[in-house]
Amino acid sequence: MHIQYILEIVGTGLFAVSGSLAANEKSKPDWFGVTFIGFITSIGGGSLRDILLGAYPLTWVKDVNFLYAVFIGILLASIFYSSFLKLRKSFFIFETLGIAMFTIIGCEKAMSYGVNPLIAAIMGMFSAVMGGVLRDVLTNEIPVIFKKEIYATACLAGAFLYLLLDYLNVERNINILLAMSLIFVIRVIAVKYNISLPKFRKEADIASS
Amino acid sequence: MHIQYILEIVGTGLFAVSGSLAANEKSKPDWFGVTFIGFITSIGGGSLRDILLGAYPLTWVKDVNFLYAVFIGILLASIFYSSFLKLRKSFFIFETLGIAMFTIIGCEKAMSYGVNPLIAAIMGMFSAVMGGVLRDVLTNEIPVIFKKEIYATACLAGAFLYLLLDYLNVERNINILLAMSLIFVIRVIAVKYNISLPKFRKEADIASS
Amino acid sequence: MHIQYILEIVGTGLFAVSGSLAANEKSKPDWFGVTFIGFITSIGGGSLRDILLGAYPLTWVKDVNFLYAVFIGILLASIFYSSFLKLRKSFFIFETLGIAMFTIIGCEKAMSYGVNPLIAAIMGMFSAVMGGVLRDVLTNEIPVIFKKEIYATACLAGAFLYLLLDYLNVERNINILLAMSLIFVIRVIAVKYNISLPKFRKEADIASS
Repeated sequence: MHIQYILEIVGTGLFAVSGSLAANEKSKPDWFGVTFIGFITSIGGGSLRDILLGAYPLTWVKDVNFLYAVFIGILLASIFYSSFLKLRKSFFIFETLGIAMFTIIGCEKAMSYGVNPLIAAIMGMFSAVMGGVLRDVLTNEIPVIFKKEIYATACLAGAFLYLLLDYLNVERNINILLAMSLIFVIRVIAVKYNISLPKFRKEADIASS
Repeated sequence: MHIQYILEIVGTGLFAVSGSLAANEKSKPDWFGVTFIGFITSIGGGSLRDILLGAYPLTWVKDVNFLYAVFIGILLASIFYSSFLKLRKSFFIFETLGIAMFTIIGCEKAMSYGVNPLIAAIMGMFSAVMGGVLRDVLTNEIPVIFKKEIYATACLAGAFLYLLLDYLNVERNINILLAMSLIFVIRVIAVKYNISLPKFRKEADIASS
Repeated sequence: MHIQYILEIVGTGLFAVSGSLAANEKSKPDWFGVTFIGFITSIGGGSLRDILLGAYPLTWVKDVNFLYAVFIGILLASIFYSSFLKLRKSFFIFETLGIAMFTIIGCEKAMSYGVNPLIAAIMGMFSAVMGGVLRDVLTNEIPVIFKKEIYATACLAGAFLYLLLDYLNVERNINILLAMSLIFVIRVIAVKYNISLPKFRKEADIASS
């Protein structure tokens, strides 16, 4: 539990870093704007999950350490801006680990509210990706998850693996490790080989319709 | 009650069909994107209503059948894509019935939380239209309800008729039928004759201001 | 308390006026659209604060007077449209007073839920600015608070002053007056002298990165 808490705090700070870097590339907002966007990116997904579950009080409202993690993340992003941009590949690794972790934690939390496993998987995926969706909506972009890479789909796959292994009584730590690994591997392979999900409709169909 | 439940499930699936068709026309997202947008379109309005009312647990979080309805709707939209586009006129009829139904159900639910009838009417309208608003915001469009056709206004009119007849102790089934009919008729006439609400300001005023 | 209630109602109406004027300038929606946008602008910030706090029932859901204030504000905006545009400077004064008031009220409400003062300050700022953010998102604009003027920052400064003076046991009415004054003065000076927060990254850095 203690290790999980530390990982959650670190993961939140990491999301704030990536949120503020993305914010800055797009619309070059001022300090407040970057902080705001970094904040929404890192706490948006978990907040939406908790609001949908009615899981009050929200994590960051109850525990100010999450807020400190966000601020430290944004400060680091400002100071080491060029380094972060150069280290983009290593950063991608950490970000994907963060996504994997928040998916499984979100899934577990939803299960603890007694919801159907299918709903829990969606809640886990929401925890990981909806912060980014909110960021994209606020900066007037079409959300990345609609277009590129197998990202939210990887989260869903990991969440389902977690739920399956949980059902089979696999030990929790092993389960979390396996489920996070699946998310990590799918996403890394998808990005490395530029794999996308098929379009809903083939171009030919669209042209002829 | 049993019939109402079936109608709600069918209506949710119907909204998912129309959400995923709209999603695909606009931004040609991948399978995940279409499913996501279809999902938000169909459950967004009711979810917002329940979050505003504090009516936990949310309908689709408690009852996974709504999720199945969404998935079946999206699957049907994919398989019968061309047919749905050709049958647009019939589809419009069903969609309008769905909007009418969700308005009245939402209005009833809000009343059961003891709110003022004016608030209940707004909640009913929100149930029917906010899923589409969320869809438009996510796909980076100006929400349709701000621009075209008497749509949300029809929902409000139906909600007020329902509340009036309820106040006058009209039998519930008759009341629902009349209120839904009003929404249906207003919307069909508005679309058929291309009637819009007046602009907030006349062009002349804007030019001279 | 009685005076505060009247001020809250008046402030809500004022926000509806400024929301509907902004709505109309941008996208020239119809009457429904303007009312909808005015409504979201004026009740959005407080609603988001209450949803994040789990503070049910929401103010405007419980008390229909807030809705009447919104409708009266929109009606006045329609009738005295040209006058409001001419009186923009006086209007700016009132709007800034409204922002200051909602910040402090929101901050107080959050404190009454036992949250950390840092969270309370954010909740106060959200109360004042998130209605405008929602309006901008709905009308497909990049939120103003990311770009221009020291606006949300002024709210945060005022909230922190309020929390400090509250901690020092300064009498509540004097405290509110001082904190609101700080917000008001910062914003008026920032707008008058066109002061902005520094960019997150200097242009030179961006060019070279």
